[in-house]
This record gives sequence, structure tokens and C-alpha cells, in this order.
Amino acid sequence: MSAATAAPARVAIVGLGLIGGSIARGLRAAGYGGELTGVVASEDDCRRALELGLVEVCYAAIGPAVAAADLIVVAVPPAAVAPVLAEIAVHAGCDAVVTDTGSSKTSVIAAARTAFAAPARRRFVPGHPIAGTECSGLEAGFAGLFQGRRVVLTPEADTDAAALARVRWLWRTLGAAVACMGAAHHDDVLAATSHLPHVLAYTLVETLDCLAERTEIFAYAAGGFADFTRIASSDPALWRDIVCANRGPVLAVVDEFIDHLSTVREAIAAGDRARLEAVFTRAKAARDGFLSFSENDGS
Amino acid sequence: MSAATAAPARVAIVGLGLIGGSIARGLRAAGYGGELTGVVASEDDCRRALELGLVEVCYAAIGPAVAAADLIVVAVPPAAVAPVLAEIAVHAGCDAVVTDTGSSKTSVIAAARTAFAAPARRRFVPGHPIAGTECSGLEAGFAGLFQGRRVVLTPEADTDAAALARVRWLWRTLGAAVACMGAAHHDDVLAATSHLPHVLAYTLVETLDCLAERTEIFAYAAGGFADFTRIASSDPALWRDIVCANRGPVLAVVDEFIDHLSTVREAIAAGDRARLEAVFTRAKAARDGFLSFSENDGS
Repeated sequence: MSAATAAPARVAIVGLGLIGGSIARGLRAAGYGGELTGVVASEDDCRRALELGLVEVCYAAIGPAVAAADLIVVAVPPAAVAPVLAEIAVHAGCDAVVTDTGSSKTSVIAAARTAFAAPARRRFVPGHPIAGTECSGLEAGFAGLFQGRRVVLTPEADTDAAALARVRWLWRTLGAAVACMGAAHHDDVLAATSHLPHVLAYTLVETLDCLAERTEIFAYAAGGFADFTRIASSDPALWRDIVCANRGPVLAVVDEFIDHLSTVREAIAAGDRARLEAVFTRAKAARDGFLSFSENDGS
Repeated sequence: MSAATAAPARVAIVGLGLIGGSIARGLRAAGYGGELTGVVASEDDCRRALELGLVEVCYAAIGPAVAAADLIVVAVPPAAVAPVLAEIAVHAGCDAVVTDTGSSKTSVIAAARTAFAAPARRRFVPGHPIAGTECSGLEAGFAGLFQGRRVVLTPEADTDAAALARVRWLWRTLGAAVACMGAAHHDDVLAATSHLPHVLAYTLVETLDCLAERTEIFAYAAGGFADFTRIASSDPALWRDIVCANRGPVLAVVDEFIDHLSTVREAIAAGDRARLEAVFTRAKAARDGFLSFSENDGS
């Protein structure tokens, strides 16, 4: 293993919620022996993070946490990314590598271009772990969250190779498989697989909640409903931000979905059994194929 | 316990798929000691049902199976209900109680009115267990499927009280909680909680399968996607039939959903963060409330 991929001596994690907290726990579980520093929103959260043993050193401010860090991981909600990067740019050392974990990459790259001057910008590596649960907060994280999962990095043409290697080290240490792709492509793919399902789950539950029979509807919902709507228990402010940050690709897939749903609606109205069966059969085949893909992949 | 709710001596189950097979297994697991007869589609299925031990006696025809039965449970796909009821009307004894397990009740009641003369019709009790999995076929059933679940019966004003008691006996023996409501009301509630989610799950997977990035989309889908789309692995022909059988209520909730989704789409397009957060927050509250309801309820 080359020097560039050796463990960095000091890692700072900005935000210790589900993602940041799982990175902290996972690094320790993997035997990482360097210095681990956390940044949270308040002194109360500092005390709680230390009680939970997420990190050994915790601050409610970015400056002191990142000043000596070799790797700075930004794991804050989308709306906080731009101000956090701007503060990191002021306080970080000139060899620090910075990465993030956000669900939309084009908007993060724009924020990084504003925050960092050219040399520091080359050491910013946009990242996104494809992992999560519907839970959030300091208590939500766990060491195994990234084990066997995929992480997408969206470096640019001039991203520093050593910086990329250091971020790869992070995710490999956490047990994830790293893939690289363009930021715009990532945003299109995630709009389809993650952002659209969240929009649909929230909208479904809200639709049912507005019906006259709402009490009985929730009383007579079966197990499939619980699974189908699990993601509607996700943090509303986080998902508002994700959807807004990735607006263009999300609108495109919402429109595609509305087109397909209108076709299905017409088939139901017309009693067009053949067309309904064709759509449902194609969907079942694609979904069963997705499952066998996931199983073969171990993710 | 009155004589009317004593165990019937002979139960015939028409259809031994997920639902019928689980009824057969569940009755035996609950210690039912009477005669249990099955009806399946072919001689091959007969042999397989006997090998699996679902029933002790199995026929590929309705007549011999139902002639001596005290309770006849129709657990066939929606499109098969009308012809099956018509055959039962010809062969069943004059004290036999008939019930079904279909997901839409208005259409089944119409089929029963066609099939049965007035006295037999009073001993037909429409029923629907709110339980299932995405699996189907002779192997899919299991004894505990109905344990702690709800079963809705939709008797009419003139339904025979002893017939209703016999069907209640069935579901209580299987560990389910029985509730009665009007058929049209049942169909509205199920359209919202079950039929609409299935339509959305199928449509979502089909939409993604039509996108140019389809291979990568399924490769980068996370755990939430697997849960959200589980019901899209359900039997396409069955769900085509269910959606067509309950067409009016399904169209009504699909249209409600499209209205709500259009509102959310406009909020995304306009960057209306407050409106998005309001919708997502309302949905999360309703979904978390549904979960606590389910947990208190033990279902």
C-alpha cells in the first residue's frame, strides 16, 4: 500500500448524525488508531456525543476541529454544506483532504467551487455512500452501516489523486465498495432510485391522511403498507433539502413517473387487462432481477 | 360457545395458493380435527398438495370436494370467483356456508347474487383477510399467516347469523381478529391501503426500467428501494384482476394521488421549501402514528 493510501493521522467529522456517527463508530470498529474529532451543533450535543463514545474530542465549532485534520468528512444536511465548506476553507491546513456524504453531487461541487480557492478545491472529493436508514440524530449511527454497501465518488478532471486515494481509504476501511462516476450522472441515478421513491412514499401517506376514511385506512393497512412507506418516516427537513438540491433530475423522474402512472390509470379506466398485465409483469421481472443482482453482489 | 360456533365437521378449501394453503396449514396447526378437503386446478397440483400435506383429500374438480362440506372457503384469484361460485351453487349441500377471501367485496357480492338463489345466498359471507406476502403458489402458504391479523367480513342485511358465526369460527381459529363493515366501505379502504400502493410500486419499477440508465439504477439502489418495491414482486395476473375488480375505488384514489403528486411537483419546481416540508412532515407524522397503532394492536 502506498504512502498516499496509509491511514491519515487525524480525521475530523463534521456532523455526527446517522452518517457521521456511523463513520466514527465504523472507523473505531475497524481498528483505526488515529485521532478522531467531531463537530456538532451545540455544547449539549458535544456532551452527548462524548457520552455515546462517538469521538474522543468534540467541538461545537468547525475551526478548532479541522485545523490539524488530514481528512475532513462533511456529513451535515444539504442546506448546511455551503456554509460548512466556507468555514473549512478558512480553518483547514493546506494539505487537508475534504470530502462530503451528500445525496446530490452537482450542488455540492458548486458550493465547493465557491468555498475553496483552486489548490484546496483539487483536494475536495465529492462522495455519497448509498446507505442509510429512516433514523437520524446522534443515536442513529452504527458501525456496520457501510459494510458491503456502495459509495459513489464524483471526482472532477483535476481532482488530486492523493486526495482521492485518502477518501478511498476511508470507505474501504468502513467495508464499502467504491465506484467513481460523473456528478451529473450520479444525480440522475439517485433521483430515480432514492429521491423519487421518497417523494412517492411521502405523497402516498399524505394522500391517505387527507382521505375521509383516514382512521380506518391506517387501521386496516397490512404489512406491505408498512414496508412500502418506511421511507416516509425519514427526516422531512433533510428530504426537503435533498429534493431541492437535486431539483432538475428529481423533476425529470417525477414527470416520467406521472406519465407512466397516467398510462396505467387509463388502462384501469378502460379495463385494459392486457396492458395492465404487461406493465405489472415487466415491473415484477425488473424487480426480481434487481433482487438477484443485490444478492449476487452481497449488498 | 353456542352450537352455531362449534367447529364444522367438514371444511373444503377451493384454491390452495398463499391464502388457501395458509388456511389449510393454519387449521391443522390449531388442532382442527375435522375433514379438510382441497380443490386445485390440475391432477399434478393435487399430487403436489398431498405431498406437501396441505390437505388429506384433494380434487381437481369442485363437485366432489364441496358436496358434503359444511364450510366452503373460496380462495381463488378474482377472475375465477364467479365461475367457482356458480359451480358451488350446483354441488353444495343446502346447509353449506360459503365464504371467500378476495380483496374486493362489491364485485364478489355481485357474483354471489348471480350464482346463488335466495336461500343459499344468505349463507354466503364475503370475507377478506388483511394478510399476505408477495409470494404465490402451492408452496407459498404457512400456518401463521393470519395470526394477529385482521379479517374484514362484509355481510349484507339478510346474511344468515349462523353462517356468519361459522365464518367467524374459521378466522378466530386461525388467530385473526374479525371486524364487519359494508362492502363498499371495505373497497374504498382497501383501494387506498393496498391496491394503490401496489399500482405505485409496479409503476415505479416500470418507470425506472424504461430509463436509459436502467442498469446502473438497479445497481445503485439502496435498501429503502428494496422495501419500497417489495410488493412489485407480487403476481401480475392477480393484481391485474384485483385492480380491475375494484376499478371505481382504485381510480378514485389514483386520481387523489395524482393531485397530491402534482402539488408536490409544483412545490419542487418552485423551490417552495416550506410547502415541501409541510407535506413531508404531515406524512411522517401519519406514518409514525400508523406504526404505533400497529404495535399497540399487536398486528
